[in-house]
Amino acid sequence: MALDEFGLIRRYFARPGLESPGLRLGIGDDAALLDLPAGETLAVSTDTLVAGRHFPHDATPFDIGWKALAVNLSDLAAMGARPLGVTLALTLPEADEVWLAAFAEGFFALADGHGVPLIGGDTTRGPLSITVTALGAVPPAQALRRDGARADDLLFVSGTLGDAGLGLAFALAQPLSWLGEFPPAHRVHALARLHRPTPRLALGQALRGIASAAMDVSDGLLQDLGHLLAASGLGAELQLEQLPLSPGLHYLAGEGGGARQQVLSWALAAGDDYELLFSVAPGQRGAVEALARQLDLPLACIGRLTSAGGLCLTWDGRPWEHERPFGYQHFRGAPDV
Amino acid sequence: MALDEFGLIRRYFARPGLESPGLRLGIGDDAALLDLPAGETLAVSTDTLVAGRHFPHDATPFDIGWKALAVNLSDLAAMGARPLGVTLALTLPEADEVWLAAFAEGFFALADGHGVPLIGGDTTRGPLSITVTALGAVPPAQALRRDGARADDLLFVSGTLGDAGLGLAFALAQPLSWLGEFPPAHRVHALARLHRPTPRLALGQALRGIASAAMDVSDGLLQDLGHLLAASGLGAELQLEQLPLSPGLHYLAGEGGGARQQVLSWALAAGDDYELLFSVAPGQRGAVEALARQLDLPLACIGRLTSAGGLCLTWDGRPWEHERPFGYQHFRGAPDV
Repeated sequence: MALDEFGLIRRYFARPGLESPGLRLGIGDDAALLDLPAGETLAVSTDTLVAGRHFPHDATPFDIGWKALAVNLSDLAAMGARPLGVTLALTLPEADEVWLAAFAEGFFALADGHGVPLIGGDTTRGPLSITVTALGAVPPAQALRRDGARADDLLFVSGTLGDAGLGLAFALAQPLSWLGEFPPAHRVHALARLHRPTPRLALGQALRGIASAAMDVSDGLLQDLGHLLAASGLGAELQLEQLPLSPGLHYLAGEGGGARQQVLSWALAAGDDYELLFSVAPGQRGAVEALARQLDLPLACIGRLTSAGGLCLTWDGRPWEHERPFGYQHFRGAPDV
Repeated sequence: MALDEFGLIRRYFARPGLESPGLRLGIGDDAALLDLPAGETLAVSTDTLVAGRHFPHDATPFDIGWKALAVNLSDLAAMGARPLGVTLALTLPEADEVWLAAFAEGFFALADGHGVPLIGGDTTRGPLSITVTALGAVPPAQALRRDGARADDLLFVSGTLGDAGLGLAFALAQPLSWLGEFPPAHRVHALARLHRPTPRLALGQALRGIASAAMDVSDGLLQDLGHLLAASGLGAELQLEQLPLSPGLHYLAGEGGGARQQVLSWALAAGDDYELLFSVAPGQRGAVEALARQLDLPLACIGRLTSAGGLCLTWDGRPWEHERPFGYQHFRGAPDV
């Protein structure tokens, strides 16, 4: 962004007053310098958000700033890591100060809430795109990898699933007849879940020593669970009646005309919920329940892992038949199944 | 990039055979896990390359892959850091496998040359853009910051300056009459300098304990030096006749018709050379000369730092008058000054 770059960075992102433990040198040199806590390993995650693909073109800059950071902090949470700092690579079609101010407000609303400093970045001119790299720390033996699950471990998921899928239907004004008289409060909730997801950082760190494996639900439960199963070399039984749904989705599931099927599709395959999916040994069920109370966050047991490969879906104990496979790609291509 | 993403990552970027000291977990989980050498601090740098802005639209994918990594490793070099790993966020308009294979070839040609593992990343669909985050390590007291320079320190620059500016003139087929009969070998050299810059990693690490301040020359010597002076609260005298030029630019400087002025402009302001600019105490001149021999890399003394602010340009000891200010923006806007 040539000569403008330095002014922009200073005005919206430098914030020289911010001190953070371990941060030796922040924005303004060739590289930032960051100390890692003794005995811990560095956790690194990078995700890009592209306009029109990861957020609607009319998403507010506040929400874009929030979400670009949230999806990366969610990866650290899924690793059991504590965030130490983030870098921001921001590509913008023009140096629009109103947009930048609102973007920075959203970004820092989330960053400050978790005490995460912005330690470096780059601003360039081009089609709108945001890449955040999140740096965190975790004691290496306690990192929540995907490959640690064992047969008979219980599968849990935090919060509720499917809200972001419903939110996207609202955001894209999809012609779903049963959404017409949807209670406004539920609509607001679903849009907030889509645009301002909550990285489960406290949960991730609390699961150290409890969970055998963990990951975040970004691409949809079925697809993400598939990655966990592949990494651990296991199969799973998933009890669909146990999927945690928000009041709005419970309300919708009671409507006719394919609404229940749509709700299940969102919960299983829409993605963008950024909840944590994790496995624990059966003896740890009590520890998980205690954690749910302590964090005031629902943690639902949705199934168990099996030594036999493959994924078995049940509803109230009976095999559940779905006519078409679910998946992110499918959902985006045909949202009104 | 939906379901394609995983296949693409696996095919071109995962390379499970690659082991690297300290890398506990590479691509494939929510985050990579990387151990930092005891007693060292983490150095982090992020840079984005956008098509049409940081490289011509017809740049080869090999060169784009190389350069996206090179500009970030150059930042680590400028910090005196040793690279530990990099992440790659790649946004592509389409999953073109021929393009991806060549991009990966260029990226890994440089990465493997320095033993730098790719530890994580993200592939998304959208306008072509590449963001690399480079992670390195340096003993904190020896990091080459911009703010450590002192008055009377000598200013050095590595390699030669201005080649990338000349290369860009060729790449854009700019109508500069004196380029018509330019020797082909010099043309090839200039284009290679533009497209495949050399991060001065060995020099950066060797300058630990010798240089008082350092940075890389990415935006042009005058602009970058300005940042170093601002960070250190100093001014400088720059001896323009000492600027290190490649044989091609020496050849050009002898031509008439504004060629010498153009050569100076490239050397001072075109940027993209990714050489290291550094300061040393006067007593360290011998150490720098020894380093130049040891690394077989020219290290030219181009001036000295002054307690009086501002930048004084001289030619053979006389004040040098330039009619217009130099700078990246200026150069791009009017390349034929």
